[in-house]
Amino acid sequence: MANAPVQRMSQLMAKTLRDDPADAEVLSHKLLVRAGYVRRTAAGIWTWLPLGKKVLANVERIVREEMDAIGAQEVLLPALLPREPYEATGRWEEYGPELFRLQDRKGGDYLLGPTHEEIFTLMVKDQVSSYKDLPVILYQIQSKYRDEARPRAGILRGREFLMKDSYSFDLEDEGLARSYALHRAAYQRIFERLGLDYRICAATAGAMGGSKSEEFLAPAEAGEDTFADCPNCDFAANTEAVAYELKPVDAAGVPAAEDIPTPDTPTIETLAAQLGVPASATLKNLLVKVDGEIVAVGVPGDREVDMDKVEAHFAPATVEMVTEADFAARPDLVRGYVGPQGLGKVTYIADPRVAPGTAWITGANKADTHAKNVVAGRDFEVDAYVDVVVVQEGDPCPKCGTGLKLDRAIEIGHIFQLGRKYADALKLDVLGQNGKPGRVTMGSYGIGVSRAVAALAEQTADDKGLCWPQEVAPADVHVVAAGKALQTELALDVSEKLSAAGVRVLVDDRPGVSPGVKFTDSELIGVPRILVAGRRAAEGVVELKDRRTGEREELSVEEAIARLTA
Amino acid sequence: MANAPVQRMSQLMAKTLRDDPADAEVLSHKLLVRAGYVRRTAAGIWTWLPLGKKVLANVERIVREEMDAIGAQEVLLPALLPREPYEATGRWEEYGPELFRLQDRKGGDYLLGPTHEEIFTLMVKDQVSSYKDLPVILYQIQSKYRDEARPRAGILRGREFLMKDSYSFDLEDEGLARSYALHRAAYQRIFERLGLDYRICAATAGAMGGSKSEEFLAPAEAGEDTFADCPNCDFAANTEAVAYELKPVDAAGVPAAEDIPTPDTPTIETLAAQLGVPASATLKNLLVKVDGEIVAVGVPGDREVDMDKVEAHFAPATVEMVTEADFAARPDLVRGYVGPQGLGKVTYIADPRVAPGTAWITGANKADTHAKNVVAGRDFEVDAYVDVVVVQEGDPCPKCGTGLKLDRAIEIGHIFQLGRKYADALKLDVLGQNGKPGRVTMGSYGIGVSRAVAALAEQTADDKGLCWPQEVAPADVHVVAAGKALQTELALDVSEKLSAAGVRVLVDDRPGVSPGVKFTDSELIGVPRILVAGRRAAEGVVELKDRRTGEREELSVEEAIARLTA
Repeated sequence: MANAPVQRMSQLMAKTLRDDPADAEVLSHKLLVRAGYVRRTAAGIWTWLPLGKKVLANVERIVREEMDAIGAQEVLLPALLPREPYEATGRWEEYGPELFRLQDRKGGDYLLGPTHEEIFTLMVKDQVSSYKDLPVILYQIQSKYRDEARPRAGILRGREFLMKDSYSFDLEDEGLARSYALHRAAYQRIFERLGLDYRICAATAGAMGGSKSEEFLAPAEAGEDTFADCPNCDFAANTEAVAYELKPVDAAGVPAAEDIPTPDTPTIETLAAQLGVPASATLKNLLVKVDGEIVAVGVPGDREVDMDKVEAHFAPATVEMVTEADFAARPDLVRGYVGPQGLGKVTYIADPRVAPGTAWITGANKADTHAKNVVAGRDFEVDAYVDVVVVQEGDPCPKCGTGLKLDRAIEIGHIFQLGRKYADALKLDVLGQNGKPGRVTMGSYGIGVSRAVAALAEQTADDKGLCWPQEVAPADVHVVAAGKALQTELALDVSEKLSAAGVRVLVDDRPGVSPGVKFTDSELIGVPRILVAGRRAAEGVVELKDRRTGEREELSVEEAIARLTA
Repeated sequence: MANAPVQRMSQLMAKTLRDDPADAEVLSHKLLVRAGYVRRTAAGIWTWLPLGKKVLANVERIVREEMDAIGAQEVLLPALLPREPYEATGRWEEYGPELFRLQDRKGGDYLLGPTHEEIFTLMVKDQVSSYKDLPVILYQIQSKYRDEARPRAGILRGREFLMKDSYSFDLEDEGLARSYALHRAAYQRIFERLGLDYRICAATAGAMGGSKSEEFLAPAEAGEDTFADCPNCDFAANTEAVAYELKPVDAAGVPAAEDIPTPDTPTIETLAAQLGVPASATLKNLLVKVDGEIVAVGVPGDREVDMDKVEAHFAPATVEMVTEADFAARPDLVRGYVGPQGLGKVTYIADPRVAPGTAWITGANKADTHAKNVVAGRDFEVDAYVDVVVVQEGDPCPKCGTGLKLDRAIEIGHIFQLGRKYADALKLDVLGQNGKPGRVTMGSYGIGVSRAVAALAEQTADDKGLCWPQEVAPADVHVVAAGKALQTELALDVSEKLSAAGVRVLVDDRPGVSPGVKFTDSELIGVPRILVAGRRAAEGVVELKDRRTGEREELSVEEAIARLTA
């Protein structure tokens, strides 16, 4: 393959800006715009300028090489997709307003692919008929579309974005576990090669369905995910996925439940104050409607309910808060004084902290009255234990008990064991070894390619600007002509020699731009090494600088070339 | 970069088919589906399977290298675009039903980019402020969208397709001519490297506006374009763009015009028969309505009017045929007996064959009456000469007069000098050398990347199947294990050795598939060289076959490897 031509900044479409764009909130957004890597075309829709496109292509190449290495086969599916397969799996509706929908000239319904499970399933159905053709892993690197309600954070969360999505197809569960493990290892290699700091975290499956699922999270202030990290053991999980074992306690010594008058205490705060107990000694019962039926959710009085977790538990049913009208229609539900011991046929779910044997102060289902010594499993039954509380800094690690740390992170990858959800909906069977048709089990795996660029910018930038690891940088060396014709001539000459030796060169040969501006821009742009043809150009001496450490040394041109081509 | 892994057909998603798909009309469609390169996802919307994706990537790489070599800068724009810039240039309306339009969750109007002149113009407006930053050439390789009324011909004319589009920006016309020439030369290198047979043809600018424009046409039966080719000189043009010089003749000897009774001759056929003259001696006058105004179009009686050319001449005005009602409203227009000498204020356009001085038999604007010796420029005026006739095989070459050949071809590239149309609409000015703002002039250049794959399939296939040139083939060699375990072992061993030496290998290691089926598939798939481990595998002897010529020779394994890695 031909060496890449020298990129001359005098001609390059990469206008740097001194000021942050007005609408930019996060570091990667500010720096990628200021350094001339990207420009906004519409809300959440971005243009990649030449330097940005190079970084993006480098990330793509690394992803492609590692996917090829696990035997994954690259394909390219359309982004414009017919409605029918998404109708068959229910996702045409489920996706809601996040799905871009459109009609063609004949009125046929189409969508812009947010992810391609359906189409891959149909492809395999068309191509594969026997267990002998499995396992198979297919992938593509392609633009995806999601109509985010509030596209923000620059390219961290766009409405059109580049993604690598892959899908595995196996006949047996063990095969799926192997395909999943192959992806997990490939993702580790990819993120290591990219130079990203990341954690592998347990995750809920979310809207994708299926069972086992892990996220690759890159810790960063700008991240939209919060994850819990154990400072003592290897536990790490998205806060949505922190789950505790149920630990029943012995309630033998607890006296019988008894009502206590508690006038004017409709809230936990007023109750705890009046009784002089901590909020954690009380049981809070939140009422919600699940597909119209009232359900109560029990958590310790000092904890908040995470409604996303409640919704995830009952999905696809819809969860709503109860209203005045609901209370009016149910005089047995005494607002502010609800207790699980008197709820009759109302479904009751509780956090594992409300384990069998634990005793609580809770509502007595009468106005101005609570009950004490109300024991789970003795005085009331829990229909299902579900982790529904908002995780807090310092909560015990589910594995070792140490207080958890909470951190912000960017989701850069996600791996799922989907199981047979899509194969069931689209009837994907192959002939098994026993001669009978068997249903295929699937995995789905994604890497946000454009998002990885932003995550890398977030993690590696310093106060001077971007600071890329070499393998993804838009060039290996940034040559600066700091002076007049003599320096420019030397800079261009060195650039050509380096390029001929296979080094990727960006050279700042802009006429009429001061050395100071060029130095500032070179630090903003963030190529790992900076070679300056300056003061001592006439002697054939240049300065070689490390962008990250700032270390610099003067070298002869020949030494500098030898160093950079080593 | 790592060597590509060996592709094993036992695992590859590339199911070959014995029969043509029922809906396939053209060769490339049939073969690319049968050989397992592509599959249809919806009308005009295709999936690229692993072998197809490799060919596509090879074409992309060649295009990219040659674009980089002329100093073009690669960027990546979104495919989902806001309405406003297209509104500003009028294309939001002009594109009609071919444009995919959609709304986001907030009701904002968007489109799927059919081509990106507007967005590139705005990008340059944002980035460039001075003549010193010009010229600049930008390109991208990206999916494009056009809602074709009748998507057909497989991937030759899809609704989602891969395209390289580039745009040049210059301040002066000479600069535009240089940028255009750079593209023309790059396109020649690209199509030569791809191994495509092509002609560069003069073209009309069509809906793009602007002036000079040429098409790169690949002759093929399946093509949707017709081009005229001179067997004697270098003239070649899309039939839409064949234009003749106006050659006035001397009418001094022609007697005065005179009416002749011609009862019941409302058509050219009846007229020519009654008078015993050839149809070419008569002048046919077609009436149309241009934005509601009647216009007459004059051509020799033996020629057909090409309505596309009439529409192109009057665009953006709309052209309709006249109706009964129009004749009823205009008794001066005598149906079947219209002549230009009595049309009064009706605009009259004519083909250059109706040159000043030519004499005709034409309608006398009275029922059952014609006139003879009606001379152009003497008895009637032509408001504009326009090439409006349908070009026919044997028409004289506009350059040398030799009879033209007409051939079918696929448009694989198109280069346009757009001029200032988009810069005017979007007000793209830069500071000129004189210190004053000057308007930028643009070129627009496209290569159908996915279409080039189909064109190549059309041109290189033979009766056995596809037959790729090496640089675009999905592999360098197709190794066939023709036998049992021994042959498979040898085939896999040779494949690994070749791969380690940088050769791209596809190996047919499918168990339980007969050698006959494997040979047939290897010819269908069309990798340039086929290496067979067969009968003499035990002796370490293999057969090396050239897919195109069918030449074969027996070689030792070592010789074969040496030959293939040479």
